[in-house]
Amino acid sequence: MIDQHISSAYDRDLEAITTLIMKMGGLVEEAILLAAQSLADRDLELAEKVRKADKVIDALELQINEDAARTIALRAPVSKDLRALLTVLRLAASLERIGDYAKNIAKRTSAVVDMPPVSGADVALRRMAREVQAMLKDTLDAYMRYDADLAEDVRQRDQEVDQMYNALFREFLTFMMEDPRNITACMHLHFMAKNIERMGDLTTNMSEQIIYLVTGEMPEEARPKGDKTPFVTDPE
Amino acid sequence: MIDQHISSAYDRDLEAITTLIMKMGGLVEEAILLAAQSLADRDLELAEKVRKADKVIDALELQINEDAARTIALRAPVSKDLRALLTVLRLAASLERIGDYAKNIAKRTSAVVDMPPVSGADVALRRMAREVQAMLKDTLDAYMRYDADLAEDVRQRDQEVDQMYNALFREFLTFMMEDPRNITACMHLHFMAKNIERMGDLTTNMSEQIIYLVTGEMPEEARPKGDKTPFVTDPE
Repeated sequence: MIDQHISSAYDRDLEAITTLIMKMGGLVEEAILLAAQSLADRDLELAEKVRKADKVIDALELQINEDAARTIALRAPVSKDLRALLTVLRLAASLERIGDYAKNIAKRTSAVVDMPPVSGADVALRRMAREVQAMLKDTLDAYMRYDADLAEDVRQRDQEVDQMYNALFREFLTFMMEDPRNITACMHLHFMAKNIERMGDLTTNMSEQIIYLVTGEMPEEARPKGDKTPFVTDPE
Repeated sequence: MIDQHISSAYDRDLEAITTLIMKMGGLVEEAILLAAQSLADRDLELAEKVRKADKVIDALELQINEDAARTIALRAPVSKDLRALLTVLRLAASLERIGDYAKNIAKRTSAVVDMPPVSGADVALRRMAREVQAMLKDTLDAYMRYDADLAEDVRQRDQEVDQMYNALFREFLTFMMEDPRNITACMHLHFMAKNIERMGDLTTNMSEQIIYLVTGEMPEEARPKGDKTPFVTDPE
């Protein structure tokens, strides 16, 4: 009876924290889309909205950290329950970082607002952003449903984001070489592309955490993380 | 008597984990310096050594995660003791990411090895790397000694790294505009500079975690994180 009581108190705590994670995830998803839209529309007001939303995202992470620490202290969970809470902390940290990248894109919009658009770049960046947002949505669903297969599916899709990024990187190099007046704009747009690519990496890391949570095993052949800019020495 | 026994078991666990963190930190410090050296000397063998060392760093993070989770489960620490363990997890995660950036620099060395050097860039990158390594060393010392003042000192020094990065960014833009044949090399060198700048950010985040651990308060006016590339529209 006591055991049951302790267990359900823990369950209630975890449920409350999961609600916060979902709220945070929804805000981050929105930030990704709005950041890309603010760039495409050169909409500084929208960019400012993304920057402000990041403060709410940061505050949610702090609250999740506090709630998880309190739950660990009060309920002293072990094994799978403890792992669930430690996973929540990691997911929140990743969401916070994805939110930061969205904010960076929004901030950079103000730098490119007066520059001539670079052929096709806005469309390509927006497509990348939509793909990453969809990956994040599925990652959050995979967490809610304890669905390792869906998380594995997200992992695989990150390769498409990487390919989009690599193609853009080569295009930017070409544009810069063709006309030095493109250099500054291309550097900024390239930063944005890199930010989106990193969001994809972080989303993939989240999926790997979820696979570990559900199956107890990290996925085989953990994906390479970090900098995956192609080492081209010459654009095609 | 039982309390004392539990307490000292916790202390022994924390001490063992701290030893792992220090070992990991030492390896990451070395990786930062060697990565910059492999670039300056165009030494691919050294670059390969940095890449291999990153596997050891990653393995140490996993071990720290497991040991910390086991300690939480076995000792059920609360308040300050729990905070210490959660901080250890965050420090290990940051060290792992700094190690990744060092590995990325080493990987990229192979891309620039056959390109003509860009005036002064190697020297500047090496100076940045040394500064970040010194910051990391002091951060680890601050953790060992529970020294919030030293951690605060590290935080302040990150501005110097940011200034070095900003100066380099402007130089690269100028070089690229002067001669399009510099573009590819400058893009690679710029990535390396950005990687070092991010290492400085992560080291600063570690210092903030230590300040929080020691004082119970996050430093006022938390530093801006993430992308701090200057929004120049024109190089001077």
